[in-house]
Order: sequence, then C-alpha cells, then structure tokens
Amino acid sequence: MTTRVAVVGGGIIGLAVAWRCVQRGLDVTVFDASDEKATTVAAGMLAPAAEIHAGEEEVQRLLADSAGRWPQFAAELEKATGIEVGYRDEGTLLVALTDDDLREVRRLCGVYERAGQPVHELTARELREREPLLSPRVRGGAYAPQDHQVDPRRVLTALRTALKGRVVTEMVTDLAGVDADVTVVAAGVGTRALTGLPVRPVKGQTVRVTAPQPPLRHIIRGYARNRPVYLVPRRDGELVIGATEEERGFDTSITVGAVLDLLRPAAELLPEVVEYPVSEIAVGLRPGTPDNAPILGALKGDIADSGHGRILVASGHYRNGVLLTPLTADLVAELVTSGVSPQGITPFAPDREALWT
Amino acid sequence: MTTRVAVVGGGIIGLAVAWRCVQRGLDVTVFDASDEKATTVAAGMLAPAAEIHAGEEEVQRLLADSAGRWPQFAAELEKATGIEVGYRDEGTLLVALTDDDLREVRRLCGVYERAGQPVHELTARELREREPLLSPRVRGGAYAPQDHQVDPRRVLTALRTALKGRVVTEMVTDLAGVDADVTVVAAGVGTRALTGLPVRPVKGQTVRVTAPQPPLRHIIRGYARNRPVYLVPRRDGELVIGATEEERGFDTSITVGAVLDLLRPAAELLPEVVEYPVSEIAVGLRPGTPDNAPILGALKGDIADSGHGRILVASGHYRNGVLLTPLTADLVAELVTSGVSPQGITPFAPDREALWT
Repeated sequence: MTTRVAVVGGGIIGLAVAWRCVQRGLDVTVFDASDEKATTVAAGMLAPAAEIHAGEEEVQRLLADSAGRWPQFAAELEKATGIEVGYRDEGTLLVALTDDDLREVRRLCGVYERAGQPVHELTARELREREPLLSPRVRGGAYAPQDHQVDPRRVLTALRTALKGRVVTEMVTDLAGVDADVTVVAAGVGTRALTGLPVRPVKGQTVRVTAPQPPLRHIIRGYARNRPVYLVPRRDGELVIGATEEERGFDTSITVGAVLDLLRPAAELLPEVVEYPVSEIAVGLRPGTPDNAPILGALKGDIADSGHGRILVASGHYRNGVLLTPLTADLVAELVTSGVSPQGITPFAPDREALWT
Repeated sequence: MTTRVAVVGGGIIGLAVAWRCVQRGLDVTVFDASDEKATTVAAGMLAPAAEIHAGEEEVQRLLADSAGRWPQFAAELEKATGIEVGYRDEGTLLVALTDDDLREVRRLCGVYERAGQPVHELTARELREREPLLSPRVRGGAYAPQDHQVDPRRVLTALRTALKGRVVTEMVTDLAGVDADVTVVAAGVGTRALTGLPVRPVKGQTVRVTAPQPPLRHIIRGYARNRPVYLVPRRDGELVIGATEEERGFDTSITVGAVLDLLRPAAELLPEVVEYPVSEIAVGLRPGTPDNAPILGALKGDIADSGHGRILVASGHYRNGVLLTPLTADLVAELVTSGVSPQGITPFAPDREALWT
C-alpha cells in the first residue's frame, strides 16, 4: 500500500518536501490554511556564507550544499511546470557608503573566505562600472559571484502547479487529528503550537518598488552609515528592499521605523530609488530557533507516540528558508521513504541539546 | 417649480454645496463616480494664513472668512447627522529642529502677522511643555492658536448622510448631458476635462500611522533640516503625516522619495513615531490653478450657452479645499438661488484674467 504523507504547511519548505515525496510515488496531501507565509515576503537571496559561531560548521555545510542544488532544482521545477522561477546567477555586490561601512564589508569578506565562498574586493570605480546607478559616493566593496537569487513567489506558484490537486485549504491545529502514515510539520512559526518545539517568530519587513527599467543586474548587499540593506532586482523591474530583523512576537504591523530603516540606506546607495513607486510593503515572520539552525528529523515524545503515524519536522529555517529548500526537500523526502535519517541530518534533530538549553 | 440643481463631484466641496442647496429647498442631485478624492487624502488642517503674493489679498480674506465659519458649519453638520466631524481647536505648534529651521519658522511667523493671524513665539522648553513627545533636539518654534483641524473623511461621511438619497454613482463626462436648471461643477482635477478651465493636478502624498495613545494634542507644523512636514493628531490615535506637493500630471503612484520626505522629518521631530504602525499611504490630486486661487462663479462661453441651464463652477481650491468648504458652500448656494454673484466672489470668477495669462 502506498505511504500516505501529510504535509502541514504550504510555504516553500512544505511544498518542496511534498513535491519530492510525490516524485517518489507517495500519496501526498498538503494542509495549507495560512495566507501569511514568510516565503512570500522573502527576497530570495541565496547567500551561502554564514556568520559561523563555534559549533555551527554543520550549518555552513548545509547552506553550501543546498546552494549547489538550486540550479538543478530550479531547472527541474521549471521543466515540470513551465513556470520560470527567477533563478539568477549574476552574483552579489557588497557595497559600502562610508569608510566605516567599508570596514564592515571587509569583515564580511572574511566571513565569506572562512566559509569557503569566493569574494573579490572591488574599488568604487569597479562597482560603478558594474552598476552605473550606484551612488557616486560609495567608497568600495566586493563581488560575491556565488550569491545568487530566486523569486520565492514564483517558486511557490510553480510548486503549487506541480502539486495540483494535492494542496487542501485546511487548518491543522492538532497533529493527532491528521490521518496519515507520516506527517511532516513544515509550519514555520506555527510549528511551536503544533509540536512544542522552540521555534519563535523573527519579524521581517520588506519593501517592493517597481522601476520602469531594471536598475540593477546584481543583488546589492549594502551598508550605509552602519545600516545594512539589500536590494534584489527582478527582471521585470521589481526591486525588493529588505529586510528588518525584529523580535516582536507575532506582531505583523508595518512600522515607520522599519520603512525608514530600509528606504534610507537604499536611497543613499541607489539614489534613483526615490523616483520609484512603492508597490508593496510586506511583513513576514521567520521561524527562528535558539541555535539559529533548522529543525530537521523525526519528532519523539508524547505527540509522536500517540499512534497516529510518524511525525517529522522541517522547520526553523530562520533567514535561510529559501536557500535551504532543495536540500531540505531531498533530505526529508528520503527520511519519509526510508525511515532512516540520511547522512548530515542528525545535527539538526528536534531533540538536539542546543534547542533546549 | 423647484429649481433642479445638479452637482458634479462628490468631494467635500460638491457635497457641502449640495447640502446648503438642499437646506434652501432646492431639488439637488450629486453625481459622484470617483473613488479618488483629494478630500480623503487631506489631513484637514485649517490654516488661514496664506503666503500672500502681490494681488492675493482677496485669497487671504477668503481663507479667514471660511475659517471663521468652520465651528458653526461643523456644529450644524454634527447636529443634522449625529456624526462627529473631528473639529479641534487646540491650535498648531510651529516647530523647528535646527537654527536654519528656526529662521524659516520666524519667516512664517511674519506671514501670520501680515495675514492678521495670531502667532506667539515659544522656546524649545515651552514647546516640550505643551508636547512632551517632541524631540529634545528641537530649537524653538511658535504657537498659532487659530490654526485648527477637522477630519475630512468624517466630514464626507456626515455630508453623505445629510444628503441621503441625493448622491448617485454616475460619471458625468459631458455637461451637456446633465438635465438640470443649474449645474455646479465641483469636480476637482476633473474640472478641466468638463469645462476647459485651467485646473491642473498637484499630487500630494500623506502617510497615516496609528499610535496606541494620541501622541500629540496640537497639530505640528514642523521643519527638520529644511524639510517641512505636518503632523495632524486625531483623538483615536491616528496621526496624519503630510504632505508632498508634486507636479506629475495625473500620476498617483506612492513613491519612495515621498515616503522618505514625510517620515524622515516626522521621526526627527517626534522620535516615537518610528514605533507606530503605518496604517495607510494615500495619494491625492489637488486641483491647482495658475494664480493659486479657487474658481467660483458662473461659466460663460460655448458650454454655458448650450441651452442646458446655468453652469457654475466651484473648483481649483488647491491646498485649501477643506478650509474653504463652508464659505464656498454658502457663496455658491447663494449664487444658485439668487442668480447674482454674492459680494466677494467676483475676484474668483472663471473668466478672470489671471487664469488665462
């Protein structure tokens, strides 16, 4: 008999896991009742160099591995659905407005190097040769050729298309009520209420503007008077300006401070941005964890032992949900099928100590 | 037989004229087909001191006269409808952030004095005694006790209630198609297309934020590093931040530059504003005229002579539409009834030279 898989959560992680499970011949249903997805707010930067703290080498490995899977994942998804998902590999420019900001960029170059990611310093002139609309006041920066992008909204649309008929609009509030052999919890910030796992919301605000012509080819990861901002250009002229990181519980209001924090440095680095219409201001809640690493693997304990089938978790991806999608989908689909944790997943198990101390 | 009056335009001017005509026993129909009204974007500051240029003394007289009619107009409208329209008379504080800004405030005080409007200089300490949430960095300012406010959205709601059944959703594109004894064109920036009068759109953007508690009692008319901004507090915690003035034709996009131009000085003068949720960003088109004065009176020429009844105009109020509403309504209603231009209206006739040179 075909294994019946329930995926709780219709964000990019849940849908990608579901798609990989369908490809393996499983009987999959996605339960998706939320219009508020971190995925639809995310800019889709795929930046695999993480700020590594002690003991976080596994996260770095995960990020690099998943980044390497994106080109194939995107191509496969586009082929299956005919929907272009906006994968772009022009790379990212790190851009500094002041001398102070340039010090921050150089520090970040060190992070790239320690992460084994390529990065090349550029002069102000070299930056403006690549991106003529950058402010003449920028002091310098660097080029990170492996920091790519994808359009998360297009990816969601493509995944929904690939899963046609398998996504139901139904809110799951109790895992015991889900009738399946395996349940995958990919509920983002809703994960805590379902599982008790320590996933907390980290609020992020982004502004979308629409330029008449795409003003940039590269992603800009900028610093202007100690304020970080990124500018992610789409081919249709949309420019995503992001993102705040705020610990405000489940509050999803757009605030004056966040709008200023995003638009001010954006206008300093790319002066023409003041002319652009604002098409959207969006707020999302990233699923954060105590050790900033995702939670991947089988749930143990009361809920899992309630006799309603195996329960797996794919959540807590924090700022890296889009980047980690291909790898998460592959690992979790393998775990669903084999029942055995694939190599590399164990450091991210729901019962790891770092989640609970 | 009762005179049949058609009012083209359902903004604050059109509805107030219609209401006054109904009170005079006329048979009134308002044609209103636009959801985009300058009225709904306006903050509702009632500031009768105008920057007078040569030959504009009549405008100053008009502003002061109408300001004097507001308390009675508001009270009468509230009594007729039971709807509170937010008339507030705490007055306005002129607030300067820097020494440069203080020079601008003092220049403005001169404008008030020449306009015969009271204004009193205040020290920074006196400002903060009146409004404790003002930035400790403000340098000084002044108090204008006669600059009041009303909530234009509430006024519209009240006027619609008072006119119940007389407002029809119908777009008028040709005055010749209107069947009435008298037609009043109060179509704001749509006036030019209907009449050929030189009314042009002057784009204004405003941001509405919502404070948990009203952060101010007074209106703030502020200057921060040469950027003007006003903050208009409602009793429910809404704060209207305005307003840009842009010559961009009929463009109604929200732009990054405008949002920055409003929020930056607002945050410098009232630091707590960064915590407030943004509830709305709105764009309106003020009806501007070549001499910055409204157009009030009978239309002459081809359109008026087409045998479809008299045509009157009440438009071109530019930044003073809300302030000029009570007087405009009284004057135009009198003109409708008597057929004779009331005293004081002639300088604003549609055929005045200043409109056409």
